[in-house]
Amino acid sequence: MNPILVLGGGPAGLSAAAELAALGAPALLVERENYLGGNPKRWHYSLLAPDLKPAEEILGALLSKVEGNPKVDLRLSTTLSKAERSESGYLVTLKSADAVETRAVSAVVLATGFDHFDSRRKFEYGYGRFPDVLDFKELEAMIHDDRVVRPSDGKPPRRIAWILCVGSRDIQVGNPWCCRLGCAVSIKQAVEVRQKHPEIDAYVYYMDIRTYGLWEDLYWKSMQEYGVKFIRGRIGQITMAEGGSRLLATGEDTILSRPTEVPFDMIVLASGMEPGVGTKEAAALFAAPVGPEGFLSPSLSDLNPVDSGIPGLFYAGAATGPKAIPDAVTEGMGAALRAYQYARR
Amino acid sequence: MNPILVLGGGPAGLSAAAELAALGAPALLVERENYLGGNPKRWHYSLLAPDLKPAEEILGALLSKVEGNPKVDLRLSTTLSKAERSESGYLVTLKSADAVETRAVSAVVLATGFDHFDSRRKFEYGYGRFPDVLDFKELEAMIHDDRVVRPSDGKPPRRIAWILCVGSRDIQVGNPWCCRLGCAVSIKQAVEVRQKHPEIDAYVYYMDIRTYGLWEDLYWKSMQEYGVKFIRGRIGQITMAEGGSRLLATGEDTILSRPTEVPFDMIVLASGMEPGVGTKEAAALFAAPVGPEGFLSPSLSDLNPVDSGIPGLFYAGAATGPKAIPDAVTEGMGAALRAYQYARR
Repeated sequence: MNPILVLGGGPAGLSAAAELAALGAPALLVERENYLGGNPKRWHYSLLAPDLKPAEEILGALLSKVEGNPKVDLRLSTTLSKAERSESGYLVTLKSADAVETRAVSAVVLATGFDHFDSRRKFEYGYGRFPDVLDFKELEAMIHDDRVVRPSDGKPPRRIAWILCVGSRDIQVGNPWCCRLGCAVSIKQAVEVRQKHPEIDAYVYYMDIRTYGLWEDLYWKSMQEYGVKFIRGRIGQITMAEGGSRLLATGEDTILSRPTEVPFDMIVLASGMEPGVGTKEAAALFAAPVGPEGFLSPSLSDLNPVDSGIPGLFYAGAATGPKAIPDAVTEGMGAALRAYQYARR
Repeated sequence: MNPILVLGGGPAGLSAAAELAALGAPALLVERENYLGGNPKRWHYSLLAPDLKPAEEILGALLSKVEGNPKVDLRLSTTLSKAERSESGYLVTLKSADAVETRAVSAVVLATGFDHFDSRRKFEYGYGRFPDVLDFKELEAMIHDDRVVRPSDGKPPRRIAWILCVGSRDIQVGNPWCCRLGCAVSIKQAVEVRQKHPEIDAYVYYMDIRTYGLWEDLYWKSMQEYGVKFIRGRIGQITMAEGGSRLLATGEDTILSRPTEVPFDMIVLASGMEPGVGTKEAAALFAAPVGPEGFLSPSLSDLNPVDSGIPGLFYAGAATGPKAIPDAVTEGMGAALRAYQYARR
């Protein structure tokens, strides 16, 4: 059997490659970066919501099944430059710094994932201009290193705000969809901060709190056990106050129906999820349909998000829309199964 | 290979049985009811949120892979009365009206699903006492039959309210978790009603609107294209008004911070999801750990919701928590894959 191409080495791709190998099918795992692990690795995710399991442990479980596995031909720092349907699957051209190679593969799993919204595009929040306005990925690394301080002066903050839906549910920036994870991850961060530093006040500005399903437990606990405060409202602007030593969040409290203007030492932006660069490239290479949001559109024949409707092409993970890691891992299994069935048909 | 037991014939179980058969593994599909299709079939789900695909079409795709499949030994109206670990998997005792049978199976997939919250338990809403207070499952059937009328007098309603989170996010009734689907399904129903009957006003009472991910599109459209109105607030009580000809919803509008009391012709309750009877029974039979909510707790070794942590035992669908059909179907694939690997180890 020719190998099955898995494009993308994040949680979904790792899961797909691991399952293919377990089924005895050769996998060709191609990742554009020089490391495996996708966004969780890139941004040093610390503990994962809602169970506070260490991201490294979860990724480690997946990586150990893939790295060194004789059934997995692993290509880092490699992209796809061409893909062509063939009778037995696809002919794909792999491109790395030192080689261009064309390979016959028997099926393809696209696990090309998402990119975080670039918070600089939300200009009025001052990200990239005000050092104490952070993206929540940056706070994630700070929490991981147990060093939550203001980048401007290295001092511990007394009061932190999280602003949800930055680059999500926002028609102005062209991203009307919800990122599915910003609420849970922000609340998780607020809980972690309050656990270790009860002297820091934590405020969360939200439109709707979307800790769906059993994640709701995290939301309750954050209020009742950790005293995280929630303010329903949209922050319109962040400015510098007190001679540049603090930040001022201005907006509307939609519960109290009045303007709000509150000083903070640090403000954390929950940046949304967009189709990844690799997802856009793959959609073009494989002529795969995308929805209005730019994510790959599955065929949904039985509602599963894995079948593309194109012979030999399968999807896993956030390439088809914002997704939590458990779903990405499960879809990796589903895509591996379908690709395996196709390859041995 | 001894067959792999799939317990539960809803979307997750159908998916698991279909995938096992496709892998060439014999499946023993056991369902307590006398039909396949689970809750979508039981409650006559009409069009599914958010894509408005007919539930029958989706179920049909799954059913056609299972019914009449020589690899699937299908047992309707059958329950499990005993389960015992054996060297090669499990010994399970099946019980139906006319037979008790013990079978050796090589692995087990629990796809025992959820039950809808019984809205009568939310006594103050009058469900079961006031004929025009419906559960949203009942409206689903009305929409399916294109006959949206008041049960009390058969007249078309002029004004309908949906109350979200009935038996969800509610500590009083002991269900603090979120059902994950009540928002999307209610909004979908409001859109369907407004599409066909633009003269009917549609109001949705909510705490948070949780149309997560790409489902957000449905929420926007419901407001902008279909004029569905959203009121943030909790209805405390429903009473009869105008001599019994209308319903009165009393509560608090938490945006306007004032009491609200609005008459409606019909009120629809978005009833939550609880662990199914079959899920509770299976947890006991297999000594499988459950979380505080009563759903099965996966081991989450790599965050996937499929591995139980118990040898030979795997989970799929809403047995591990409230879940949409696409996720249930995908988990059916994952569980089939894992069970297959275990059975052929």
